Amino acid sequence: MPSDLHPLPADQVTTWDHEADVVVAGYGIAGVSAAIEAARAGAEVLVLERTGGWGGAASLSGGIVYLGGGTGLQKALGFDDTAENMKTFMLAALGPGADEDKIAEYCNGSVAHYDWLVDNGVVFKESFWGEPGWEVPGDDGLMYSGGENSAPFNEIATPAPRGHVPQMADKRTGEKGGGFMLMQPLSQVVESLGVRAEYDVRVQRLIVDGDGRVVGIVAKQYGKEVCVRARRGVVLATGSFAYNKEMVAAYAPQLNGRPGAAIEEHDGRAIRMAQALGADLAHMDATEVAFFGDPQLMARGILVNGRGQRYVPEDTYPGRIGQLTLLKNDNQAFLVIDEVAYEKGCAATSSTPFFRFRPKWVAETVEELESDMGLPTGTLQATVEVYNRHAAQGSDPVLGKKSEWVKPIESPFAALDLRNCTAGFTLGGLRTTVDSEVLHVSGEPIPGLYAAGRCTSGVCAWGYASGTSLGDGSFFGRRAGISAAKG
Amino acid sequence: MPSDLHPLPADQVTTWDHEADVVVAGYGIAGVSAAIEAARAGAEVLVLERTGGWGGAASLSGGIVYLGGGTGLQKALGFDDTAENMKTFMLAALGPGADEDKIAEYCNGSVAHYDWLVDNGVVFKESFWGEPGWEVPGDDGLMYSGGENSAPFNEIATPAPRGHVPQMADKRTGEKGGGFMLMQPLSQVVESLGVRAEYDVRVQRLIVDGDGRVVGIVAKQYGKEVCVRARRGVVLATGSFAYNKEMVAAYAPQLNGRPGAAIEEHDGRAIRMAQALGADLAHMDATEVAFFGDPQLMARGILVNGRGQRYVPEDTYPGRIGQLTLLKNDNQAFLVIDEVAYEKGCAATSSTPFFRFRPKWVAETVEELESDMGLPTGTLQATVEVYNRHAAQGSDPVLGKKSEWVKPIESPFAALDLRNCTAGFTLGGLRTTVDSEVLHVSGEPIPGLYAAGRCTSGVCAWGYASGTSLGDGSFFGRRAGISAAKG
Repeated sequence: MPSDLHPLPADQVTTWDHEADVVVAGYGIAGVSAAIEAARAGAEVLVLERTGGWGGAASLSGGIVYLGGGTGLQKALGFDDTAENMKTFMLAALGPGADEDKIAEYCNGSVAHYDWLVDNGVVFKESFWGEPGWEVPGDDGLMYSGGENSAPFNEIATPAPRGHVPQMADKRTGEKGGGFMLMQPLSQVVESLGVRAEYDVRVQRLIVDGDGRVVGIVAKQYGKEVCVRARRGVVLATGSFAYNKEMVAAYAPQLNGRPGAAIEEHDGRAIRMAQALGADLAHMDATEVAFFGDPQLMARGILVNGRGQRYVPEDTYPGRIGQLTLLKNDNQAFLVIDEVAYEKGCAATSSTPFFRFRPKWVAETVEELESDMGLPTGTLQATVEVYNRHAAQGSDPVLGKKSEWVKPIESPFAALDLRNCTAGFTLGGLRTTVDSEVLHVSGEPIPGLYAAGRCTSGVCAWGYASGTSLGDGSFFGRRAGISAAKG
Repeated sequence: MPSDLHPLPADQVTTWDHEADVVVAGYGIAGVSAAIEAARAGAEVLVLERTGGWGGAASLSGGIVYLGGGTGLQKALGFDDTAENMKTFMLAALGPGADEDKIAEYCNGSVAHYDWLVDNGVVFKESFWGEPGWEVPGDDGLMYSGGENSAPFNEIATPAPRGHVPQMADKRTGEKGGGFMLMQPLSQVVESLGVRAEYDVRVQRLIVDGDGRVVGIVAKQYGKEVCVRARRGVVLATGSFAYNKEMVAAYAPQLNGRPGAAIEEHDGRAIRMAQALGADLAHMDATEVAFFGDPQLMARGILVNGRGQRYVPEDTYPGRIGQLTLLKNDNQAFLVIDEVAYEKGCAATSSTPFFRFRPKWVAETVEELESDMGLPTGTLQATVEVYNRHAAQGSDPVLGKKSEWVKPIESPFAALDLRNCTAGFTLGGLRTTVDSEVLHVSGEPIPGLYAAGRCTSGVCAWGYASGTSLGDGSFFGRRAGISAAKG
């Protein structure tokens, strides 16, 4: 990222190459949501997109949107939920340090946001997927996506599934996948509203007037520098900094060399542009962590760290397993499972059959297995002994795995090597208000500047739940569009 | 922090109330070091200090300075060390993501920096303290202060003690303590060089000229706004953001409500002032973590988390125990120890006898103890069984505690409740070059602006060793003074 990031004084602009009331940078989930609301509020809207079309990381994703509080889909499928219950879960699961105001707004507005998505053409099939999984394996519309029904959260709040999945065709991701089926109808709405889009435009730096108000963006289009005027406001929606090596090294070094579910366009540029104006940041160290383990196998075994100790209820949200593995257990994980459970797990339906690795070690006794794995004598034996002792009674007082998945591990034994099996994307970014205004370090909004999506810090501080990125990107993307249109 | 942080254009300054070549904000360890070097380089220097005198957090601290590579003191006491060995340790212990360039400069310059401190009147007594401890209990000059002689680092680099402690009088901290005895001679040098100091001055925002160069500081002195001109450069050295609740919440929420070895002047103001100019940050989530356990007791027992599992070699640097407890084990720690070891530990010399809490639980059997502590049946029993099995052979293959501290735990048993016994200060801050220039987010130094000490990100990224704050504060403080004097 060599080029200049310093704000350009508006009086140095000689030609405005493009112009609109509201200029949205980025045509992913936050940008498309901002564009719809700004246009509906009467603003002339221009979207600047770096690639050749709409979509962003959203359209390549699984499409899960985190919604609750009693959405139409939750009700149709018989799940009780309230905004308060949703808030209790999110504060417990997404911190420490989660933004209480943002989460409160998000939960209180979640039912209406679901309706908005449906009204704008997103289809959620009335069917529930209740098995452990990263995503739905078919076209079901609702799933648990954050460990709501697992320890410790199932004791903190009433479990309710909140992963809302747009109905997909033949693939889980990519064209016809959940993310595509989310973005396609929304982008059609944008077009129907007469919003213009310019493609192959890379944003470079912000343009400010003499009062410090953001009035435009300098960008490169087909390699040529262009100045884009925003009469009312600029919305930044260009995604995370997961693919900016320098920023990851300085802010989230635990992800060094491990960018995961992100795209190379996620280079942190919008964050940098706003920082150059004195914008504040938040939770830059927070990261989603993907884990290359199949939930159908993990729930049926025990996960142990490099000391042979359990550390997570194996039936929880696999992203939580990823976080605890990478961030709290030195990225060391082994799945210990018996032959019967392994075969049952392999026979179960899963969205991630490619994570069903073959066991690296098999043995008749735990002692042998422990030795083959190179664990200190007695450690794994002690762990299995304690687990089995309670499993015989169907309980797991150590970590609270649900009784349906608790079963003594019996010979023959196997272990999968899941060390260094993580990747992730960054969750931190610009500090914004609940109306998506970008905050200056002085605590005041920067006039004319709005942001949403993964270039901002949203509802997640440390923890994560699948669907919160598309969720807060669309929810606060809409707020950004509304705020910018007001100017 | 309500007042304006926006940079003030120099052409709006009507009166310069104070003026110097180099203006240093903060009279702690980084400021005093910068002032000395800037003055020796021929600059007229003015120090602005918020309190009524020199000192800062440094003079209230234990005074440990992290130095090595074969300092005069290390050699006199028979310890071998090289810059390369020191670098290997620091990169392993202070990351992930530690700044390799800074660490290389720091290690290569460490012997000369020791000599500089001695030449400027800091006295290090030629005596070594080799017992587990947070600090030296008497006036010894050298100690291990980062776990160099403990697992896993004792296998990664050759152990060498690098905690250099200024000889103190009758107290460990405060007046006549180690930090005072570090700051006093340095402040006398500053005075002898004719450096002026203004007290009761709170810095507010930076003053910039039309080219974006920093040319001064707006401050409040006795409640009145003053403008201070810096002809060559401004050095920011006002300490951490540990006492800024909002910044801690946004950047290091694991420390929410736990400010520790910091002072209320550490309000992050200098970081904010520079951010308002587009300054970049680094490692804002990194934190030192103090742990209220006495090392003489901890080394003689086993520390277990809320699941009854060991997680740290108990004979390591107690700050590492603190980090692993707070950041990786939910702030849950119990010290399990037998009566004989407890009494031995209490009889040993320690700098922290006030951390020798009474056992909360005592029992004849581990089973009973485990039950009284509320741990799931079998968990603590398994941990003690595995520990004792290896301890009988004098080894600890699980965590690598040194054999001198490994001994089976025998009845009667006791446990100390060390849950939530942590506090800490922040280690992140402004991103600076090895010459202490403050970097803009574009990657270029901000002209005229320098910084050092805990308002910058120094040699620590995630890990910590006692003495690295006074160490990098003094080392890069000197660099800041030299760079600013060049202008």
